[in-house]
Amino acid sequence: MITLMKALILNCTLKPTPESSNTDILCQKAAAEFEKLGVTTTILRPVDYNLLPGVASHMGEGDEWQKILDQILDVEIVVIASPIWVGQLGSVAKRVIERLNAIFHEKELSDPKTGQFLVYNKVAGALVTGNEDGAHYAIMNILWSMEEFGFTIPPNVNAYWVGVAGPGPSYAEAGGDRHLYTNKTYKVMVHNLVYFAELLKEHPIPTDMLKIEEEAKKESDEKSS
Amino acid sequence: MITLMKALILNCTLKPTPESSNTDILCQKAAAEFEKLGVTTTILRPVDYNLLPGVASHMGEGDEWQKILDQILDVEIVVIASPIWVGQLGSVAKRVIERLNAIFHEKELSDPKTGQFLVYNKVAGALVTGNEDGAHYAIMNILWSMEEFGFTIPPNVNAYWVGVAGPGPSYAEAGGDRHLYTNKTYKVMVHNLVYFAELLKEHPIPTDMLKIEEEAKKESDEKSS
Amino acid sequence: MITLMKALILNCTLKPTPESSNTDILCQKAAAEFEKLGVTTTILRPVDYNLLPGVASHMGEGDEWQKILDQILDVEIVVIASPIWVGQLGSVAKRVIERLNAIFHEKELSDPKTGQFLVYNKVAGALVTGNEDGAHYAIMNILWSMEEFGFTIPPNVNAYWVGVAGPGPSYAEAGGDRHLYTNKTYKVMVHNLVYFAELLKEHPIPTDMLKIEEEAKKESDEKSS
Amino acid sequence: MITLMKALILNCTLKPTPESSNTDILCQKAAAEFEKLGVTTTILRPVDYNLLPGVASHMGEGDEWQKILDQILDVEIVVIASPIWVGQLGSVAKRVIERLNAIFHEKELSDPKTGQFLVYNKVAGALVTGNEDGAHYAIMNILWSMEEFGFTIPPNVNAYWVGVAGPGPSYAEAGGDRHLYTNKTYKVMVHNLVYFAELLKEHPIPTDMLKIEEEAKKESDEKSS
Repeated sequence: MITLMKALILNCTLKPTPESSNTDILCQKAAAEFEKLGVTTTILRPVDYNLLPGVASHMGEGDEWQKILDQILDVEIVVIASPIWVGQLGSVAKRVIERLNAIFHEKELSDPKTGQFLVYNKVAGALVTGNEDGAHYAIMNILWSMEEFGFTIPPNVNAYWVGVAGPGPSYAEAGGDRHLYTNKTYKVMVHNLVYFAELLKEHPIPTDMLKIEEEAKKESDEKSS
Repeated sequence: MITLMKALILNCTLKPTPESSNTDILCQKAAAEFEKLGVTTTILRPVDYNLLPGVASHMGEGDEWQKILDQILDVEIVVIASPIWVGQLGSVAKRVIERLNAIFHEKELSDPKTGQFLVYNKVAGALVTGNEDGAHYAIMNILWSMEEFGFTIPPNVNAYWVGVAGPGPSYAEAGGDRHLYTNKTYKVMVHNLVYFAELLKEHPIPTDMLKIEEEAKKESDEKSS
Repeated sequence: MITLMKALILNCTLKPTPESSNTDILCQKAAAEFEKLGVTTTILRPVDYNLLPGVASHMGEGDEWQKILDQILDVEIVVIASPIWVGQLGSVAKRVIERLNAIFHEKELSDPKTGQFLVYNKVAGALVTGNEDGAHYAIMNILWSMEEFGFTIPPNVNAYWVGVAGPGPSYAEAGGDRHLYTNKTYKVMVHNLVYFAELLKEHPIPTDMLKIEEEAKKESDEKSS
Repeated sequence: MITLMKALILNCTLKPTPESSNTDILCQKAAAEFEKLGVTTTILRPVDYNLLPGVASHMGEGDEWQKILDQILDVEIVVIASPIWVGQLGSVAKRVIERLNAIFHEKELSDPKTGQFLVYNKVAGALVTGNEDGAHYAIMNILWSMEEFGFTIPPNVNAYWVGVAGPGPSYAEAGGDRHLYTNKTYKVMVHNLVYFAELLKEHPIPTDMLKIEEEAKKESDEKSS
């Protein structure tokens, strides 16, 4: 199969380019693995863009969300990468998720024929690093949100590294880039994401959301949602 | 395509059969939809079984987990359904998830050739009802756990109903079974689960976890995980 | 001040007595610190009791929840300790939380004069160990649930230890009992819990929930909740 | 007792002043109740300020976090209010929490004599509104973060309103401001917050974190944290 896939890794570090980011090291590894499998990969830091708060695609003057959204819509594979702060997903990743919320209510983000959200047939994964506990919780938050928007979540599409309890060195500083479990899991993530992206390209999801809504009305009191 | 799929809905209500369960009403709806698509569906209440605490498949005398595990391994589609208590996933669903943890360390639950967990190529979804807020949080918990075990999570494979703030009538009592959004989403869930189950049956995931682990060792300090 | 306080540590390990429990080592440390401050401390494993699923205090034949509930009602300080499985709070801790849900609807668990739940003026903390990430998420779950039931949550009343990413040795096996951050935090937890327990004994919360409900009705449509 | 307390409600809506905010209606109710109890109350929208991403108190040119931090440090009671998006806490509340993270590592945010974080002896609560499920999860996230920073969490210091499943009218639009449970709980929140704020003003927490750290070192391998 000739692969012409594209992946976008959104490194939701709080640090603008070119500051060094521990999370970036893990993103680089994943990108190299994607490239090995023939997938053109872009790493981008949302913090480099002016992302205004809001749940519409266009939030007015100065808002640069559209630039990121365009890239999301252009690729088959999206990976959200984030540091952990206070044991939870960082605010930049949260902002990205929040902006994607427009999918639920903007007509241009759905297929008029099937009602499918425009990210249907795309796949998503998660990368998380922190000097302290919180990775599974952050990953759960990312993957669930992406599933809700219409991305497919293949098995085992996450990798992480955290230090033991309390403050301490971060991923690269602590040699986490040499940690076997993390190295195995980011590779599995990449392989599973690429496989599913190809599968869905050849066999797109046929679900007709509009027709299903009509069916649902028959057993419901409301006549519109 | 001739479908010979099987689905298992684990209704993790706290109430043993034959007590009435609000969550069961939503499970019945999903089961009927699965059957319409030619999928043989079983609804089962884990609370009817003696599930001892532990993270191994066999926890000794009286433990009946194997009966549920056998059914999980026998189907292509698994749906975890649960009520909400104290704004979170119920303890029975939690117990089921905990018992599946054996997947990570029991050899018999992995394919010796690829290292894939035995639930690879199966798909999972979630149904949640409660008289009070907590559904998204519970669903997030379920879907993420299942993804971690090796299930694929297609887009939009969850449906829920909750009341407005505070105590009040539950799903069926409040007429939630006539709520359009819930009816639409459970149907979408069923359609997407069935499509992916068929897709994975014809095109199983080729990822070789053992080979990937060998690759990972080259960039790691540990030589075994 | 003469302290006549009592603390109860519920070690929600999945392993019945006398199996060795990593979480127990951390519980023992906290117990020793409580005793140093003059607080009589009991460590108890809920898994040693038959705790039937349900949200009432009495779930019928064989149910032993009342034995634990009696001890909770008898002390001023309750600590929930739990291992992490699949990146989240264990099912035994979840079961304990679920059984406490009876507080919301059983008259005998509220003060008839003020409507306060009977655990008002008690304080709660959390201890978590795991070989892998998930502590903050589990702690969040515990502390929030306890706050909802009516316990007071003083600052910094949690301590934890987890290993770096993936499978590995557990708390005691890895020497986590010699980890400074964990040792500092469990001691802070104990000191803050004891201080608040004494404070609330001398200055019990005066809030009259029944009177507040009457006030609330004046700005509400429903006339009962 | 003569009350000279101050409360700060951070309405973490995504909408800048003077756009109408459903969450604001609930904040106004809480503010009126605080005032009734003699507490001077300010409602402020963090979205009106330029809060740069980061975990230090000063993130460089244009950053206005200090203006909010100053107000937090000036009051005894802090309430975080937030809408729900995608079933979870909004990104503005997340940003506020993330900026407070500086408490863990900036000397000026700790008492040099006791090592206590400067928010010790302050109390925190949470208000959440959404047209769809996610309140308990968002509240859990807020309260736990605040507890970690050093705030005390009295019992039942949260109130919320959400619609039934799926899209629909928001709090005020749906008449949620007339919902008894929400009205009762915000009042209980206010009463409990005020009581604890007064209690801690008269009886500040004596815990000496520096001394405890020295004690902890005796049973630890590391000699600094």
